[in-house]
Amino acid sequence: MSIRLQTHGGDIYAFEREILDFSASINPLGAPESVIKAARESLENTDRYPDDKCRDLRCSLAKKHGVSVDNIICGNGAEELIYAVMQALRPKSVLVLMPTFSEYERAARAVGADIIKYTLDEKNGFSVTEDVLDLVGQADITVICDPNNPTGKTIDADLLERIIQNSNIALIDRSFADFGERQGTVLRLSQETENRPLSLFSFTKMYAIPALRLGYAVCEDKKIIEKINAAKPRWSVSVPAQAAGLAALNETEYVKKSIEYINAEKRFLYHAFDEMGIEYFKSDVNFILFKSERPLYSLLLEKGILIRDCTSFGLNGYYRIAVRTHEENERLVKALREVCL
Amino acid sequence: MSIRLQTHGGDIYAFEREILDFSASINPLGAPESVIKAARESLENTDRYPDDKCRDLRCSLAKKHGVSVDNIICGNGAEELIYAVMQALRPKSVLVLMPTFSEYERAARAVGADIIKYTLDEKNGFSVTEDVLDLVGQADITVICDPNNPTGKTIDADLLERIIQNSNIALIDRSFADFGERQGTVLRLSQETENRPLSLFSFTKMYAIPALRLGYAVCEDKKIIEKINAAKPRWSVSVPAQAAGLAALNETEYVKKSIEYINAEKRFLYHAFDEMGIEYFKSDVNFILFKSERPLYSLLLEKGILIRDCTSFGLNGYYRIAVRTHEENERLVKALREVCL
Repeated sequence: MSIRLQTHGGDIYAFEREILDFSASINPLGAPESVIKAARESLENTDRYPDDKCRDLRCSLAKKHGVSVDNIICGNGAEELIYAVMQALRPKSVLVLMPTFSEYERAARAVGADIIKYTLDEKNGFSVTEDVLDLVGQADITVICDPNNPTGKTIDADLLERIIQNSNIALIDRSFADFGERQGTVLRLSQETENRPLSLFSFTKMYAIPALRLGYAVCEDKKIIEKINAAKPRWSVSVPAQAAGLAALNETEYVKKSIEYINAEKRFLYHAFDEMGIEYFKSDVNFILFKSERPLYSLLLEKGILIRDCTSFGLNGYYRIAVRTHEENERLVKALREVCL
Repeated sequence: MSIRLQTHGGDIYAFEREILDFSASINPLGAPESVIKAARESLENTDRYPDDKCRDLRCSLAKKHGVSVDNIICGNGAEELIYAVMQALRPKSVLVLMPTFSEYERAARAVGADIIKYTLDEKNGFSVTEDVLDLVGQADITVICDPNNPTGKTIDADLLERIIQNSNIALIDRSFADFGERQGTVLRLSQETENRPLSLFSFTKMYAIPALRLGYAVCEDKKIIEKINAAKPRWSVSVPAQAAGLAALNETEYVKKSIEYINAEKRFLYHAFDEMGIEYFKSDVNFILFKSERPLYSLLLEKGILIRDCTSFGLNGYYRIAVRTHEENERLVKALREVCL
């Protein structure tokens, strides 16, 4: 079996046997039935192009966020929009707060941008602190992953607002926001400012549909949305993705139930970590970052469990696990005990 | 009802009532059952990310084309790859042979490229002629849509080879090639040359799955494939698209049957056009370009039939229709007789 480290979660296709995947951070309750049903039924019309304007979906999203449909653009996963933003705005420099999701840097480099790195300090529990404000004015785009991957930390709301106000353009990736206390969006700034942030959202994590690829961006500055639109392919959001997204937006109870479930499982995992003496970082979302001096990636892989080795995040000796179902979390804890104790 | 002209086929979502869509050129036999089945079954695993390397699909495509998997990149429709090619290679100038599919120009403009236009002459039945060779050396990328949309014409094989040899990079869009006499690819050049073309293919048209978004590019120069890979999002090809594509590659009999069906229907439509005195252009593929001085777009829309007004191609007074099922083609002919005679 390969023990080559992976640079992203979820690549179960690299293995020849069935694997229990803690490396991709997806809602452990899976996709709501209505979402699967909508996607399945949409396959009756595979011979039709998708609506390139995603009219119905954007209409529902506009209602959800209290904005106009012109403030919204849908994408083939939030990931497509990260690339489209860079292609559309062609920044010369992009500020990223490390460690974080690596696609910001990859997409920025694809358009030749310089990367300005701000390093989150473990001493502060990887929280963003005020000194970031010294850098935001220097970058054409400031990228904030909030809550952050892989640390699971939410940025302080006042600080986020100051970052937005001092940024040329702030790209706020809210892909994991559905799991946090501060759900929804950070669109409404308390002060009048021209610096409207660009907020990115994902259907992948909460609605457990990474297979289908669906995300969107919201920006109160319509000109930015228009620019992104001009830089991206027209028909990028498939028919099943649009159908699934529309169904997902009705699943408010499911979201609530999922958060409760995940919070209970986080308590279970924290308790187990405490018992094993494993140092971890309390998470605002559905994954947990922790530390170990043992080569846990390969040790657990031998037991058929895939976790995220955080070396590619610049965090050697750190690991990220998704919060999964209770039974699966128990399997993980049992395996951890076997290799750690 | 809106009679605003559309700039692309297939946007049935702009209408409030059910419409018979002759504007999108999709296999009239629909998607093979095995393809729908594969896509549907893949929805059992919506909580898994797609294989970002499309390993199985690229492996099958490599066998089909007799190349290495490293010569192939899959995309979220051929369209994504048109954009990714432009983003990756950042041409200063792009040669397009007008009239043609408008996304080449849009994608080229998105990276700030100048467009060099060569105009196909109706006197030659919109065929590409040798004078194009005067221009190919001037452009960083030469785009050839072969067979061409909306004219339905295949380029002469010897001329195509000379274009490739004289181009800096030739991008050959073979999205409709499955329907033509010269199926497959134009990868093998008769002479040794460093100018490996980049061939684009689509699953959309032959396998009738525009809803799912799947295309791919083949290039014998691996460095070009690597560059495109670096410029595009990682997980852009969804799980259902990959599953459908794999199933489609087994459907060789279906392809044969489809071509026979379409050829028979083209003869039926040509005959009807002849009877009505409508001037048309014989097509190598599954759509037909024809001329009329009547406002056929709005006249047919009143009868619930959507055809492609070619004004946005620069062809005012020209229309494109897909070849559909016999019953549907009869409905079109009946409607045309009513408005033309």
